Amino acid sequence: MSFKNIYFILIRPQLGENIGATARALKNFNFSNLRIVNPRDGWPNEKAKVTSVGAINILNSSKVYNSLEKAVADLNFIIATTSRNRNVNKISIPIDQLNKKIKNKKKIGIIFGPEASGLSNSELSCADCIIKIPTNKNFSSINLSHSVMLFGYEFYKLFKNKKNKPILKNKNLIAKKSEVAKFISFIISSLDKIGFLQPQHKKKSMINSIKNIFYRNNLSNKEIRILLGVFASLNKRNIKKLN
Amino acid sequence: MSFKNIYFILIRPQLGENIGATARALKNFNFSNLRIVNPRDGWPNEKAKVTSVGAINILNSSKVYNSLEKAVADLNFIIATTSRNRNVNKISIPIDQLNKKIKNKKKIGIIFGPEASGLSNSELSCADCIIKIPTNKNFSSINLSHSVMLFGYEFYKLFKNKKNKPILKNKNLIAKKSEVAKFISFIISSLDKIGFLQPQHKKKSMINSIKNIFYRNNLSNKEIRILLGVFASLNKRNIKKLN
Repeated sequence: MSFKNIYFILIRPQLGENIGATARALKNFNFSNLRIVNPRDGWPNEKAKVTSVGAINILNSSKVYNSLEKAVADLNFIIATTSRNRNVNKISIPIDQLNKKIKNKKKIGIIFGPEASGLSNSELSCADCIIKIPTNKNFSSINLSHSVMLFGYEFYKLFKNKKNKPILKNKNLIAKKSEVAKFISFIISSLDKIGFLQPQHKKKSMINSIKNIFYRNNLSNKEIRILLGVFASLNKRNIKKLN
Repeated sequence: MSFKNIYFILIRPQLGENIGATARALKNFNFSNLRIVNPRDGWPNEKAKVTSVGAINILNSSKVYNSLEKAVADLNFIIATTSRNRNVNKISIPIDQLNKKIKNKKKIGIIFGPEASGLSNSELSCADCIIKIPTNKNFSSINLSHSVMLFGYEFYKLFKNKKNKPILKNKNLIAKKSEVAKFISFIISSLDKIGFLQPQHKKKSMINSIKNIFYRNNLSNKEIRILLGVFASLNKRNIKKLN
């Protein structure tokens, strides 16, 4: 577990200035993995180059994706950042207690929402946990690059302080997010076929609830196989019957 | 010693954008005392207003000085910030050990140098101590507002520290273990009916795996209802068919 295991992921960032400032902050703390999902103004971005100052290499090696799912597919543990209190059943811990969450994780992604609105509930549902920066209750909206900065800082301290160094055990155990996503989309399509996701206006929130339950659960590959077996077995006869 | 005892002082700042972002960061952490010494582009500054977002009140109540000496005249203890190693005979401590320096101080000033060069040796000499942000040795130049952000954050934690406990969202909503157990035994009996828990010698370990998945998950009552719905719905037709 070290700098190269951490992936900073900007979701739908709006301002190039913030993307550049993010790159600089990452380099300040020795990180280099930047991923960008659907940047509003396209990519590459001239304004990002200006504010990146000496960190243009981070911008040049960044990867751009057209969906959150693709951006996290190869990662094992996703931390969502939010300044608002969110009504989701996920554990939320203060940022300076990061080390409690990242033990035994192999590839960790931290997702940051867009400047104006933060992460949507659907984006938030893909995360394993929420980490909150403690702030003034009456003014909790933090600049995007400032949030990245604080995460970089806290991870840097963690990795530099040998006493606190998280130990990686059983590193192959936790499934990649792409495996979890495959499993979830299997459940959802099965449920859709038998008419469970009705009425239509509740469908989206039901899907988010199901994602919430399974994404936060650190499922291993073996457990996913078991759950797939469970659902497939329950579903097989339904499908037969429908046909 | 509290938020109002801390004064953030920008020395010869060059970019209005950074002054505005500084104001926002101060407000994020409940600080309000901003002092500015000889801003390059004069004062007030339109670009600062733009990046301050909701913290225009901090800019409006900031005080502008024409010398560092005047800006710190009424303060008791001055902390200088630097990312470079400086050849001055002053004690330098890491930022997360702030508390060791600020005990028993009444009014504390933190001085930040201009973007391009940082504090001059002469300015540095006005400080009681140097506090350094730990960074990548090969890229230690931190954006001005990012440095302010980190100081705000560390002071905020210091003043707020109540042994930050992890918080689980909606803590009243977490289901009792008896509810989880009821749900799990429902799944298991459904699976048993349709012959999923075979062969017999693997049954026990399959049941344990299923328990493992759902017990560690802090399910809420609402989520249990959803899962029960999911399984019941998948199962209904199976049962009908078996009967």
